[in-house]
Amino acid sequence: MRKIESVDFFYLSMPEVTTEGDGSQDALLVRVSAGGVVGWGECEASPLVSIAAFVCPISHGACRPVGASVRGQVIEGPEDISRIALQVQLDSMDLLQAAHTWSGVEIALWDLLGKCRGEPIWKMLGYRESFAKFPYASQLFGDTPEQTYERAVTARKSRFHAVKFGWGPIGRGDLNTDIAHFSAAREGLGKDCRLMIDAGQVFGENVEAAAERLPALETVDAVWLEEPFHTSALAAYSALALRSEKIKLAAGEGAHNLHMLAHLIDYGKVGFIQIDCGRIGGIGVGKRVADYVLARDVSFVNHTFTSHLALSASLQPYAGLREHEICEYPFAPKALAWDLTTNHLERDRDGCVRAPDSHGLGITIDTEKARSFLVDVDIRVKGQSLFASSNQF
Amino acid sequence: MRKIESVDFFYLSMPEVTTEGDGSQDALLVRVSAGGVVGWGECEASPLVSIAAFVCPISHGACRPVGASVRGQVIEGPEDISRIALQVQLDSMDLLQAAHTWSGVEIALWDLLGKCRGEPIWKMLGYRESFAKFPYASQLFGDTPEQTYERAVTARKSRFHAVKFGWGPIGRGDLNTDIAHFSAAREGLGKDCRLMIDAGQVFGENVEAAAERLPALETVDAVWLEEPFHTSALAAYSALALRSEKIKLAAGEGAHNLHMLAHLIDYGKVGFIQIDCGRIGGIGVGKRVADYVLARDVSFVNHTFTSHLALSASLQPYAGLREHEICEYPFAPKALAWDLTTNHLERDRDGCVRAPDSHGLGITIDTEKARSFLVDVDIRVKGQSLFASSNQF
Repeated sequence: MRKIESVDFFYLSMPEVTTEGDGSQDALLVRVSAGGVVGWGECEASPLVSIAAFVCPISHGACRPVGASVRGQVIEGPEDISRIALQVQLDSMDLLQAAHTWSGVEIALWDLLGKCRGEPIWKMLGYRESFAKFPYASQLFGDTPEQTYERAVTARKSRFHAVKFGWGPIGRGDLNTDIAHFSAAREGLGKDCRLMIDAGQVFGENVEAAAERLPALETVDAVWLEEPFHTSALAAYSALALRSEKIKLAAGEGAHNLHMLAHLIDYGKVGFIQIDCGRIGGIGVGKRVADYVLARDVSFVNHTFTSHLALSASLQPYAGLREHEICEYPFAPKALAWDLTTNHLERDRDGCVRAPDSHGLGITIDTEKARSFLVDVDIRVKGQSLFASSNQF
Repeated sequence: MRKIESVDFFYLSMPEVTTEGDGSQDALLVRVSAGGVVGWGECEASPLVSIAAFVCPISHGACRPVGASVRGQVIEGPEDISRIALQVQLDSMDLLQAAHTWSGVEIALWDLLGKCRGEPIWKMLGYRESFAKFPYASQLFGDTPEQTYERAVTARKSRFHAVKFGWGPIGRGDLNTDIAHFSAAREGLGKDCRLMIDAGQVFGENVEAAAERLPALETVDAVWLEEPFHTSALAAYSALALRSEKIKLAAGEGAHNLHMLAHLIDYGKVGFIQIDCGRIGGIGVGKRVADYVLARDVSFVNHTFTSHLALSASLQPYAGLREHEICEYPFAPKALAWDLTTNHLERDRDGCVRAPDSHGLGITIDTEKARSFLVDVDIRVKGQSLFASSNQF
């Protein structure tokens, strides 16, 4: 009987982390060992807080550390992952951060199982084939329309057939500035490249402010408008969805359980649901979302702005869905996110990527390089060490 | 111009914390100082994780520590609290625990403002009067129906006209055991005492399992069935709400923003919305929920299972609503939760409580006693101390 023997967290960071909206500036790697086999996962985001949620003292029966539900558990098959997930949900009910912490552990458990069984995760999820996905380059708007234009040109030259621009000045200045950025993006990309826009929740729940941008988004033929509002502002999402036949809404990265994703679809009327397995409770929840969208007129897209370990994890839940073909692909991540792994999900000759056929996530950690980004962490409570970072990869 | 000069966290705990569902076993006190005035608040729950969310290193622009949005801010009036709340929402968007951390800070800011202005918080919220609330004794089911009966008798003898039983064995064994507990509670309370039942999310999203209990709940004349499901299982809530004319559903403590509470009302069809200001984003969000329920056939109830500081905070948002008269009242909290404050919201001759008329929260911390529960915490990142507990109350 295979039991979880150890769960180790590695907090990695660029030497300097800035306020730009680039999620690849740090990472929380999780390593799980059971029966001599090792699996890797990655939590999104805020490494220190997610570590604390794993090791913290118990507050009461429904507010236990995530570690209490994981350590020593039997892990023989996917049903064990579901069982542990349910225990985390109940025993860490009042520990808000638990979902993010558990997500990385869950991914590592799938990786571990895949290696034990000699199967890719998507096969364990019931898929027969891992279909090609059409990656879009995910990047930030420039500070000026000229910079946005330059970035669009660069992306097109890099053989991307779809590009998403996000955050930056959008929604923070006047309408015309935003329109100038949208137009610059389209101009730089040329006619045939698909363009997505990410507003980074800048409109709060102000439907009118977001709606003002819709005509310009139609003009530049945007595929979607992402996260105009707070993830939970469902009424604002559905109100905006009614305002354009052409521009669909995208959201989901801010959700941290299956219900919240279903609500975005059912009540928020989003057209693209974006799943970050490092936040929503892992690959198992991702697969349940994939099953959910299949019965509805909604597209599944991964959300990934970090490493290729996280990218592989987020591709697994919809690897076998041929029609759900769009994939977020970190275009210009920080060195940390790239160097973390020895192999990468390279684009093929058609510019496409797919979840690997190799065992588990199919991604190998570059422990030597990862070590160079390691952040020293020490958490002590009542004089006892609850967590001390280790460089023993 | 008054600026926030310091924000200090005090992690308090009983010497031993067990797995029982008693949230009064630890506490996270927050003290905010500005212009020589001090305000106090309390975060629910998991002190270590909420501290980490205040002091953690930045991950990127939308994942900053809560502290970055609070320290050094101007605090002159309620509008400043709203402004900081919005900044936390945007700048800590990807930091899941942020809502819990911010909640305690927000409460402390209201307390501070009330002391500066010489007003109770409910008056600053726009209420003219603080109406009497009808407290229900909140306690756990016994392990056996006999124990539940004894607890009911004790509660009745303590002059409570309403009692809530929760958690314990409910939903974990067979139907008849649950019915025996419900009956024992009613028998011990007598005919005239109101009875509420809290299922502690034990049914997950299993509507049928919860619905099986409805006839017994009708027989014992329960006022509500609380949290049969996961806070986000809105479809399950609304499905169950349709199954009984008499038994209303209650929920809300698991929510951590205004939207989630509105969803419980609009989509989940709950009849009682339960607000813990230490989790949902503070007193300001509580007031917005109160405004929301006023336009709907829903009752506002506080959720409080900890200290009288937290109790006062959770009474403020609906202090001025005469018809919303039910109030959760910690019946048998651990010594920590009682000793923490020098004064308490004692029940008057009618057995009622009300939000105090004194300034701010109207509750004084017993620093000497609090010190005896203090937990030593030390968080170091990159060799730098991010948090070191202080006994300087």
